[in-house]
Amino acid sequence: MIYFDNSATTRPYKEALDSFLTVSSEYFGNPSSLHSMGGQAEKLLSQAREQVAKLLKVKAAEIYFTSGGTESNNIAIKGAVIMNRNKGRHIITSSVEHASVHAAMEQLGQEGFEITYLPVNENGRIRVEDVEKAIRKDTILISIMQVNNEVGTVQPIKEIGEMLKNHPAILFHVDTVQGIGKVPLSLYNSNVDLCSLSAHKFHGLKGTGALFIREGARLAPLFSGGNQERMMRSGTENVAGAVAMAKALRMTMDKSDSGTRRMKKIQTILRTGLREIEGVVIHTPIENSAPHIVNFSLNGMKSEVFIHALEQQGVFVSTTSACSSKRKSPSKTLLAMGIPESLAESAIRISLSFENTEEEAKTAILAMKNTANQLRKVMN
Amino acid sequence: MIYFDNSATTRPYKEALDSFLTVSSEYFGNPSSLHSMGGQAEKLLSQAREQVAKLLKVKAAEIYFTSGGTESNNIAIKGAVIMNRNKGRHIITSSVEHASVHAAMEQLGQEGFEITYLPVNENGRIRVEDVEKAIRKDTILISIMQVNNEVGTVQPIKEIGEMLKNHPAILFHVDTVQGIGKVPLSLYNSNVDLCSLSAHKFHGLKGTGALFIREGARLAPLFSGGNQERMMRSGTENVAGAVAMAKALRMTMDKSDSGTRRMKKIQTILRTGLREIEGVVIHTPIENSAPHIVNFSLNGMKSEVFIHALEQQGVFVSTTSACSSKRKSPSKTLLAMGIPESLAESAIRISLSFENTEEEAKTAILAMKNTANQLRKVMN
Ligand SMILES: Cc1ncc(COP(=O)(O)O)c(C=O)c1O
Ligand SMILES: Cc1ncc(COP(=O)(O)O)c(C=O)c1O
Repeated sequence: MIYFDNSATTRPYKEALDSFLTVSSEYFGNPSSLHSMGGQAEKLLSQAREQVAKLLKVKAAEIYFTSGGTESNNIAIKGAVIMNRNKGRHIITSSVEHASVHAAMEQLGQEGFEITYLPVNENGRIRVEDVEKAIRKDTILISIMQVNNEVGTVQPIKEIGEMLKNHPAILFHVDTVQGIGKVPLSLYNSNVDLCSLSAHKFHGLKGTGALFIREGARLAPLFSGGNQERMMRSGTENVAGAVAMAKALRMTMDKSDSGTRRMKKIQTILRTGLREIEGVVIHTPIENSAPHIVNFSLNGMKSEVFIHALEQQGVFVSTTSACSSKRKSPSKTLLAMGIPESLAESAIRISLSFENTEEEAKTAILAMKNTANQLRKVMN
Repeated sequence: MIYFDNSATTRPYKEALDSFLTVSSEYFGNPSSLHSMGGQAEKLLSQAREQVAKLLKVKAAEIYFTSGGTESNNIAIKGAVIMNRNKGRHIITSSVEHASVHAAMEQLGQEGFEITYLPVNENGRIRVEDVEKAIRKDTILISIMQVNNEVGTVQPIKEIGEMLKNHPAILFHVDTVQGIGKVPLSLYNSNVDLCSLSAHKFHGLKGTGALFIREGARLAPLFSGGNQERMMRSGTENVAGAVAMAKALRMTMDKSDSGTRRMKKIQTILRTGLREIEGVVIHTPIENSAPHIVNFSLNGMKSEVFIHALEQQGVFVSTTSACSSKRKSPSKTLLAMGIPESLAESAIRISLSFENTEEEAKTAILAMKNTANQLRKVMN
């Protein structure tokens, strides 16, 4: 089996699962309990927080544990605008954000906020100048993803952050769910105020994530209650999940250099092989793109058909993003890039992890060539 | 070690952890992915949903997986009032709810909703007549917990539900986080529209919970995004956590009869023993109380002092609720019951699980007697 759908979710690292198991069974106390079992759990939680903070080069007090990327994005966006709604009602985002950002924006749009959706160029990239031009006196939040989950385009986060130094009152949120460990990001240098992570995208466990909230930035919480996570996120903490996430993040960061180098080699193999298949159009740009995503269309072939046929040969890829794959509408990102609907309907996303090999890529290319040939025969 | 702090959190069942492990490592696909690994994960998720539904005697389509009791309570309450704010702005709750309900109410109070906090009698119980009297034309939600987490009082859920048959437009939310498996609750017969569960309170895993939303009841989601959980709760599903919760719930329900019988015996041992300690006042009522909680004060002795001393003898108990234990303010529930602040500051909560034994209760009583004697000597 060749698993090339790592942007949908990854196989948890054994070490992360082991940590989860140990903490769940041996340190199961409630971190809020006064006795030593509570104290042990609290200590593990704060160690996990320190570890995540260190890996992101920020302070432990700036890391908040959540249930995943969607929650982190929702807290960041809704929490920021609820807290700052008296300062202004204008938000800037891109037209290629993940559903959890896009849908949050649409909801806020219905609540009377004004949203500017920045266009992207043919590579799926926004322009810093467009961000700057869109800024108004009443802009309270800018939310831009670091790496697009459908085509892998990397947005100019650092440049936006630089520019925002002239607008210190605007909160800058970055969704690094797809980028972390694969594309460098310096939160402080890029002037980022809020940043979302999801553990299951880097071999941690589903149902765990984190939100970086820069010291001094203030958000309204979505969950009220026992005031865990320094009042930002009430609810008994998933200590084992946080420890597993810290472990997975450390492993990811350790592998980052060699892993991204290997991904780039794999990406070359894939691109070279794909170009030999008649009717293939590659959508992922060569410049300013993440090493782990290759998005392409096999002209005239519905994505689902290709995916299912490819699966017969043991290769697992996806249409666009997992969560919109069942809606069967063509990728929002591809359409925003100006790709015609007919071609977007044939889009296939290959997404790698540090665990994939060049060998797998070669085998996958053969399988794709076979599949393309077979399907063409059937269709003619 | 005698763990008597099960209302704070429980030790996960080995079987639940095993399920978590198997699903996480072998069926790690994203349920939204189109390929068979996604399909397998989706199947596991829907089996878990069916299992939970069957155990609660409701439909699978009425079960929504969440990250825990706090999230379930927040979705139920905020989702209900956001959806129904045009129908009215009045909410009824009790003065002894869990922080995740109470704080959500306070937040809504600040947003312009009117909240009626019903008083309780000396046993911590509200009166159905008071609920009925509080109902107004603009009442949109009633939120009452089934079992109080600090003293164990059982509220008259069935009777409230009966009465509410005359008020079909009002949503009825019940927090059964402390009650499930220990105190019977028939969701349909009690006319419940929304009901919150938390897995780590019944030997499932932290970071997982469920919300029952009766067919036809409509809520606004708190997380927007990929529209998982039938649009009610976006975010990649914690499949392994849901499967583990279903397993833990089945085991809990299987043990329910024999387990609650044993709890009652243990409770008798504890009450008898406690009464023999000078200065002990038991707060948990004999009637209409859950089998697993005994709350008492050792007059004149600060809770923390007693807890830490008792821990030296290997017995783990708590002050009041775990999440407010660090605030060191006396229990809201005890104060609402009319217990003087000085006595409330000495409150100790013993909370049992089906895994505790009569032997443990006898040992714990000896330890408590010793501790009380020692501390009194030190203090005199
Ligand atoms: C860019 C991006 N943001 C956010 C998310 C949401 O994360 P989660 O699945 O943990 O809710 C995803 C993946 O689903 C993603 O790819
Ligand atoms: C009655 C009650 N409701 C809600 C909760 C919150 O559940 P969770 O810890 O899963 O957030 C708790 C426990 O903390 C509780 O005892």
